[in-house]
Amino acid sequence: MGVDRTETRWNGWGWTEHLDTLSHNQGVWYWIARELGMSALLTTPALPLSEIELPPSRLPTAALNALAEVVGEAWVKDGKFERASHARGKSYHDLLHLRAGDLETVPDAVVYPANPLECLDVVQRCAERDLAVVPTGGGSSVVGGVTAECLPDQRGVVVLDTTRMMRVLTIDEVAMTAVVEAGIYGPDLEEALAEKGFTLGHFPQSFQFSTLGGWIAARGAGQNSNKYGKAESWLVGTKLATPKGFWTTECFPASAAGPNLNDIVLGSEGSLGVITEATIKIQKMPEVQDYRGYMFNSFEQGLEAARTIAQAKLPVAMVRLSDEAETHFFRSFSDAQKKQSFGRQLKKQIESMVLKAKGIGEKPCVMIIGVEGSKQGTNATVNAAAAIVRKFGGKTIGKGVGKSWLEGRFHGPYARDPMLDHGLGVDTLETSTRWSNIQHLQGAMIEAIDQSMRDNIPFDNAHGIVMGHVSHSYADGASLYYTFVFPRDLDHEIEQWAAIKKAASEAIMEHGGTISHHHGVGTDHVPWMVEEKGPIGLSVLKAIKEDLDTANIMNPGKLVP
Amino acid sequence: MGVDRTETRWNGWGWTEHLDTLSHNQGVWYWIARELGMSALLTTPALPLSEIELPPSRLPTAALNALAEVVGEAWVKDGKFERASHARGKSYHDLLHLRAGDLETVPDAVVYPANPLECLDVVQRCAERDLAVVPTGGGSSVVGGVTAECLPDQRGVVVLDTTRMMRVLTIDEVAMTAVVEAGIYGPDLEEALAEKGFTLGHFPQSFQFSTLGGWIAARGAGQNSNKYGKAESWLVGTKLATPKGFWTTECFPASAAGPNLNDIVLGSEGSLGVITEATIKIQKMPEVQDYRGYMFNSFEQGLEAARTIAQAKLPVAMVRLSDEAETHFFRSFSDAQKKQSFGRQLKKQIESMVLKAKGIGEKPCVMIIGVEGSKQGTNATVNAAAAIVRKFGGKTIGKGVGKSWLEGRFHGPYARDPMLDHGLGVDTLETSTRWSNIQHLQGAMIEAIDQSMRDNIPFDNAHGIVMGHVSHSYADGASLYYTFVFPRDLDHEIEQWAAIKKAASEAIMEHGGTISHHHGVGTDHVPWMVEEKGPIGLSVLKAIKEDLDTANIMNPGKLVP
Repeated sequence: MGVDRTETRWNGWGWTEHLDTLSHNQGVWYWIARELGMSALLTTPALPLSEIELPPSRLPTAALNALAEVVGEAWVKDGKFERASHARGKSYHDLLHLRAGDLETVPDAVVYPANPLECLDVVQRCAERDLAVVPTGGGSSVVGGVTAECLPDQRGVVVLDTTRMMRVLTIDEVAMTAVVEAGIYGPDLEEALAEKGFTLGHFPQSFQFSTLGGWIAARGAGQNSNKYGKAESWLVGTKLATPKGFWTTECFPASAAGPNLNDIVLGSEGSLGVITEATIKIQKMPEVQDYRGYMFNSFEQGLEAARTIAQAKLPVAMVRLSDEAETHFFRSFSDAQKKQSFGRQLKKQIESMVLKAKGIGEKPCVMIIGVEGSKQGTNATVNAAAAIVRKFGGKTIGKGVGKSWLEGRFHGPYARDPMLDHGLGVDTLETSTRWSNIQHLQGAMIEAIDQSMRDNIPFDNAHGIVMGHVSHSYADGASLYYTFVFPRDLDHEIEQWAAIKKAASEAIMEHGGTISHHHGVGTDHVPWMVEEKGPIGLSVLKAIKEDLDTANIMNPGKLVP
Repeated sequence: MGVDRTETRWNGWGWTEHLDTLSHNQGVWYWIARELGMSALLTTPALPLSEIELPPSRLPTAALNALAEVVGEAWVKDGKFERASHARGKSYHDLLHLRAGDLETVPDAVVYPANPLECLDVVQRCAERDLAVVPTGGGSSVVGGVTAECLPDQRGVVVLDTTRMMRVLTIDEVAMTAVVEAGIYGPDLEEALAEKGFTLGHFPQSFQFSTLGGWIAARGAGQNSNKYGKAESWLVGTKLATPKGFWTTECFPASAAGPNLNDIVLGSEGSLGVITEATIKIQKMPEVQDYRGYMFNSFEQGLEAARTIAQAKLPVAMVRLSDEAETHFFRSFSDAQKKQSFGRQLKKQIESMVLKAKGIGEKPCVMIIGVEGSKQGTNATVNAAAAIVRKFGGKTIGKGVGKSWLEGRFHGPYARDPMLDHGLGVDTLETSTRWSNIQHLQGAMIEAIDQSMRDNIPFDNAHGIVMGHVSHSYADGASLYYTFVFPRDLDHEIEQWAAIKKAASEAIMEHGGTISHHHGVGTDHVPWMVEEKGPIGLSVLKAIKEDLDTANIMNPGKLVP
């Protein structure tokens, strides 16, 4: 149970022992170089931890002892790997720092409370000592949500790792809710629920390395959010350890007893307190899963189908529509990789359709529709969705694509580290907007990211690749998710990233999107969150923060500027 | 368009000209007396406005002029009827004051801004002059949400009536959202949406006399909330005029850009600012409505059916389950009334079932299931719901009951005024809880209200009637709604009401309910809201209020103590 961090990459994604089929696959690197307009890629390995020196811990013995009094000596850790692996999250921006051995920002100690009471005690002892507390679960934030930093006038940073709090406390089979400790990892939670025939159904790409508390703190969404909901849909109530004491929020099916303060906890990113427990809605484990692929001649047609499915309130689990560039990338990447995969399946299907003259053009867009539930209900929904797809010119490409997508659903992030080893940059970002604006925003995003990559690549004729997809849809709109790959400017890595990020974020603001649909704010999105909330909204957020965390020790610098 | 208040009862419910079939129906009063253990009822007419003296307006001419500068002289009203009809909402507690001529609490003026800018100007001019601002729409609050009161150190009360702001500004047919001014009444909103083939589907019992802004401010729910959602489900974004300036909240299908502050506006009850506009999700106007009745042998069986329907996520619009007492009351009341009605239909059906030996016992519980949508989808849902009903022993009693329920859906409150004229008290309250607790809470509520009525009725052998129903259901729980009727203690009307209200509210708190599922907090629920939110939650609410409304001029005394 849980995740032993010593078995994971402190400066990269996932299990250290995960089979790496990419690093030494020359065909892939040759292909990527060509796609980026480069004659060759560089070799840019990360600095090993052994060659990196960490700043000494600022915590005096008295402070370490005070924390050890609460959690026990064994659970106050300040070894090199502990500190390094809790220094930052898993964003491209984080990895740039970690791989370069820049560990200026690193916790002075990592503490592991066993229960809410210990959490509260740790928070309060840190408050007394002017120590910043950075709550973390799996630490998989990709927006700087767990950067172990403090304010200039604070005396150090304690990372509060919640992952010892990993129990499912109660399962209410009648109300279909569960009370769960917030530090539980995705697989452990699902395993415990499955024993009773239930699921939360929250499967973000980080599922194996992220926790319930993190999903709530970041307002996360799983890949199957159409059925199981975003965190704000499945959260019923929470318990937090705040500098002011325990805060147990309202916990009802619905209420009109003033504002629902759970919606303040959702997206609070550890800045108000440590989420220690949550009551969550659970659903019956589906009898069957049906994931299958469709192909459209244009993104526009696919969008119309996705919108129609969402507005008809068909109980699908997922509608994932790749744009032309992403569809192309999947096909070509797997071709270069010469490996069985989602893209390989896709390529095969498309080629066979073109051969059979099934009316798919040169730049198709793939859609995966996932349906889960009872056998009968699933069949009905699959048929209803397929009818809508056909109405908008989509063609079926079968279950093989769906199956391989499901199998590879958590593997995407593993591709990033080898890319970083080859002089490449790769980042993702996401937004949401209303259906009537989605094509406009898509156009603006692609243009902004593409242009900004061109402006910030120091090699002649080189350029980046940007591709997008819709992955979460609602009656009134949908999310848009972008992945972009580019040759790194090795002398100005951070500046290059910041420039592209800024261009993309400004495009989001200017064209009617939100700065994040499910990644959160962290440090990276603060300026645009401020713009999005406006002066009054920001003032409200600050008032809440100041009330609960007067000394600003809780995850300073995140969310609230 | 709109509602001309001079055509409505200032101290009672609805249109003055509404046909009153009850007042002179001696059979009804004879029957009610018997049901309450009384030998006869009293005659207790309300004091006419002509015999009531209002305290003089405290607003100096300069203040009236300052307001008139903003909205125009014609829209600053301080006539007797204007002030009296804006003094309070429509709770039993309010009516006790109004009918007795107690108009100590009354606005000094009523202003009608034409647009958000005028709202902001009115709010700011009131702030400068230490005048409380009580925002109101239809004024149908039943929890003291629009009582025209100010704090002891304030210089008067201005009621800000939003009902001139009644335009549908835009309808986005692609995203299925609309931007609407908040002062629009239910029928006008539905009419404008219907022209384009849409509906909001929010039909509270107050529908004809309540506004969009009020629904949001109170976190209201319509009778068909299973399909169309409670206010927090259909609200996308809002605009408020606060003492600090305009606040436009985030407006996205979903976001992770920190907490969603719309959830602070929902349930804010005018205490943070005036809601001037809202972006709302709209749905396609249903092709068909199918409302039909079923009968269960026990409340417990009905609850199991309601839970199964909710957890199967059947797309029903309404599942309304009356307990034994309410089912009995409907039957007997209409029998006494000798009038075609929902109860009459019910009685006929039950009698025929008993005759036909269809297995319905002495104390049946009626359930109305409403389904709306496409013809095909509705049929499928009706059949699926009926199958679940049968599984739990329910018997169909046909469409007649459903039809008459739909026809009479907004008429219930008209019965209250004649009851008050006959020495009776009648009030309603509601809560919600998880399915695993619902029978327990139901038992506790019935007992608490019944006992408290017995303890507070000054006539030997007299008692009250209390009856309940479930009307809004969710995967994890449902609402419970209670109506109670009792002989009034004429010398201690307010104290009697307060004692029963306190007993019921304490039972809610003690047995796991929320103090309100959709009525809101107002003045009446403040003590229990405080208990429900807990010290930290309350502190957060106060911090938000103090930030936006430092001088506490916005609806003082409501929501935040």
